[in-house]
Amino acid sequence: MDRILKERTSVSKARELLLEKVVPLERTDIVPISNAAGRVLATTTLAPRNVPHYRRSAMDGYAIRSVDIMGASPTNPVMLQISDYVDEGVCCHLSTGVQVPEEADAVIMIEDTATIGDMIEVRAQLHPGKNIGDIGEDVRQNEIIFNKEHLLRPCDIAVLASLGIEEVKVFSKPIVAIIPTGNDLIPLGDDNLPAPGKTLDINSTMIGMYVEKWGAKARYCDIVPEDRELIRESIVRNMDADFIVVSGGTSVGERDFVPGVVESLGEKLVHGVGLSPGKPTALGVAGNTPVLCMPGYPAAGLVALFAFGKPAIRKVGNIPDIPEITVNVKLTGKISSREGYVSYARVIVEGDTARPLMTAGAGILSSIAKSNGFAIIPENVEGLEEGNEVDVVLIE
Amino acid sequence: MDRILKERTSVSKARELLLEKVVPLERTDIVPISNAAGRVLATTTLAPRNVPHYRRSAMDGYAIRSVDIMGASPTNPVMLQISDYVDEGVCCHLSTGVQVPEEADAVIMIEDTATIGDMIEVRAQLHPGKNIGDIGEDVRQNEIIFNKEHLLRPCDIAVLASLGIEEVKVFSKPIVAIIPTGNDLIPLGDDNLPAPGKTLDINSTMIGMYVEKWGAKARYCDIVPEDRELIRESIVRNMDADFIVVSGGTSVGERDFVPGVVESLGEKLVHGVGLSPGKPTALGVAGNTPVLCMPGYPAAGLVALFAFGKPAIRKVGNIPDIPEITVNVKLTGKISSREGYVSYARVIVEGDTARPLMTAGAGILSSIAKSNGFAIIPENVEGLEEGNEVDVVLIE
Repeated sequence: MDRILKERTSVSKARELLLEKVVPLERTDIVPISNAAGRVLATTTLAPRNVPHYRRSAMDGYAIRSVDIMGASPTNPVMLQISDYVDEGVCCHLSTGVQVPEEADAVIMIEDTATIGDMIEVRAQLHPGKNIGDIGEDVRQNEIIFNKEHLLRPCDIAVLASLGIEEVKVFSKPIVAIIPTGNDLIPLGDDNLPAPGKTLDINSTMIGMYVEKWGAKARYCDIVPEDRELIRESIVRNMDADFIVVSGGTSVGERDFVPGVVESLGEKLVHGVGLSPGKPTALGVAGNTPVLCMPGYPAAGLVALFAFGKPAIRKVGNIPDIPEITVNVKLTGKISSREGYVSYARVIVEGDTARPLMTAGAGILSSIAKSNGFAIIPENVEGLEEGNEVDVVLIE
Repeated sequence: MDRILKERTSVSKARELLLEKVVPLERTDIVPISNAAGRVLATTTLAPRNVPHYRRSAMDGYAIRSVDIMGASPTNPVMLQISDYVDEGVCCHLSTGVQVPEEADAVIMIEDTATIGDMIEVRAQLHPGKNIGDIGEDVRQNEIIFNKEHLLRPCDIAVLASLGIEEVKVFSKPIVAIIPTGNDLIPLGDDNLPAPGKTLDINSTMIGMYVEKWGAKARYCDIVPEDRELIRESIVRNMDADFIVVSGGTSVGERDFVPGVVESLGEKLVHGVGLSPGKPTALGVAGNTPVLCMPGYPAAGLVALFAFGKPAIRKVGNIPDIPEITVNVKLTGKISSREGYVSYARVIVEGDTARPLMTAGAGILSSIAKSNGFAIIPENVEGLEEGNEVDVVLIE
């Protein structure tokens, strides 16, 4: 009973076909490190210098000559003179991080000493080198600090800063063109209560926010009516982008031309996937630019965006994959799903259980507002019962 | 052999003591929804209207009167006239989402019809209401859409937009004052190769970037020398912030006054925790503002920031906790840890294994650059062996 679209490619196969066509971009930007968190390095980064570049005290304590306290013990303490230099029998106070005088070969922790007048009493011996950070101990000059394609975290920015690196070459953010289609669509903000038959274009905003969250730059395009030539023009105009998301116009209706237009501009890879909701998704390439044609229904479009848009955008942007936040929970109710379809069922995760939400199809956006996760039901499973365990991906 | 700090509070107890003192802030901002992703709602949001606010076609197809096709079957098809209105024996084409004419009580999918001239042939009957989205079916006017304290995701922004909501009241971002202390510290950018004994203040940048990632606003303060009065002045000046992070000055050294200053301004909760690295961490309250005094050594400071700063900042900002991204992996080498300390061991996660990094203490920031996760070893475990399973939190 599958008359909407005859074709049905599995989600994994469809994703593989799309990702084969996605070529990681090579454009780069030079950015100051203060703006580089979340960006991806376009070159291997070498240490321009040793860290530390001097012998550094690892403790608050006294710089000493280890030979002077050889054999020191609680029953045989050694007394050292406190001064501002180090010599035989003479020690010098140091704070953590400061340079250790040439003459010293160890630092004794302040807690391991007792101060008596201008002397310290030492009750244990130390190995040479103890509590001293050697030159290059942390980082050696010209050592590889980060490999190409490393995603910079805030702690990495700190590492770069500590090496005196002020800017880095990173891959440019991929540009994702977002093309909303539909005769009935009106832009957000024009009319708060659209006339019957008119629909606010909320998908552009939603897609754009996710796209930017995933590390890309959203290019918002004008709404295109359901006209083959106008859709073609809009896609052609955006073939300079790194990825195109067309929203709407993928169902087999009279005026749903989008997959056909993509085919005429390059290649249609897939039209119809084993994804629920999200079946009418189409994937293709226009010129050299991969295209996701997602259903216009927000909930179905969102699932298609997660299933296909996110991995493709990450690949084109050279952005390493981060595992989804997944929880394994027990269902408190039954979920029906169709064999042959990967089903994204909206659920509310509460502790270690998940409550399925009653949903009446792909159009019910409010069910997404209420849910905090998608229970992902594999295509070889036909429905889940109350008490079954299921993996839930939290909706970001 | 724990002479550095005599006190040692468990991580969980220390966190509990800190969080008890953290009062979620009540300040709010009104922001346009386009800037509201990642923000937390300060009010319960009700639907200002029904969605849909008209009877909406759920399919591309024809609006019909179900009574006209009662009994239709493949052997007994019914023919209907196509027109631009609906009446007895007359149907009208509809695209998905448009208003269904008053006279119709069902929509037949285009795929379930055959067009013959200006007629359609219908081979199955439909229930009244089929493929029609009723008024308020998705959202009912005045229904609760989001509860207070809901973290707005991009899909939620789409829901708000679809309801015609243009701005929302959200909790203000908490202000986190970051106070770097140390006589040896110099600000970033002043000198790329600091003189021996001088250290670039990389902690402020690192803390600030994490703080903003977690939803707060960083207030960067000037470096404060190790002077009781100056430290006191800086903390007092920042007691209007929602949270204070003081970096450095927590070890028991001659000039490590920070925890004492906090005590004099309010309450010292904890000084010394069972955390490795990060033992010298102190927690307290200055005025009404909770304070995290973290070790100045970047790696130890980072662990303290994750263990205490993150949950506190989330609580003060009313930001719901998101589970850490954790993977369960097998160790390819041994990790030593001390009983009584929660150890954050830096590891490299590769597939389903984790390779411990050789680290030489809290100061070794490069080990963080190389690692992608912290293997968290509970305090009741003394070291892990090769082949042991361990939970690793990916370093964000």
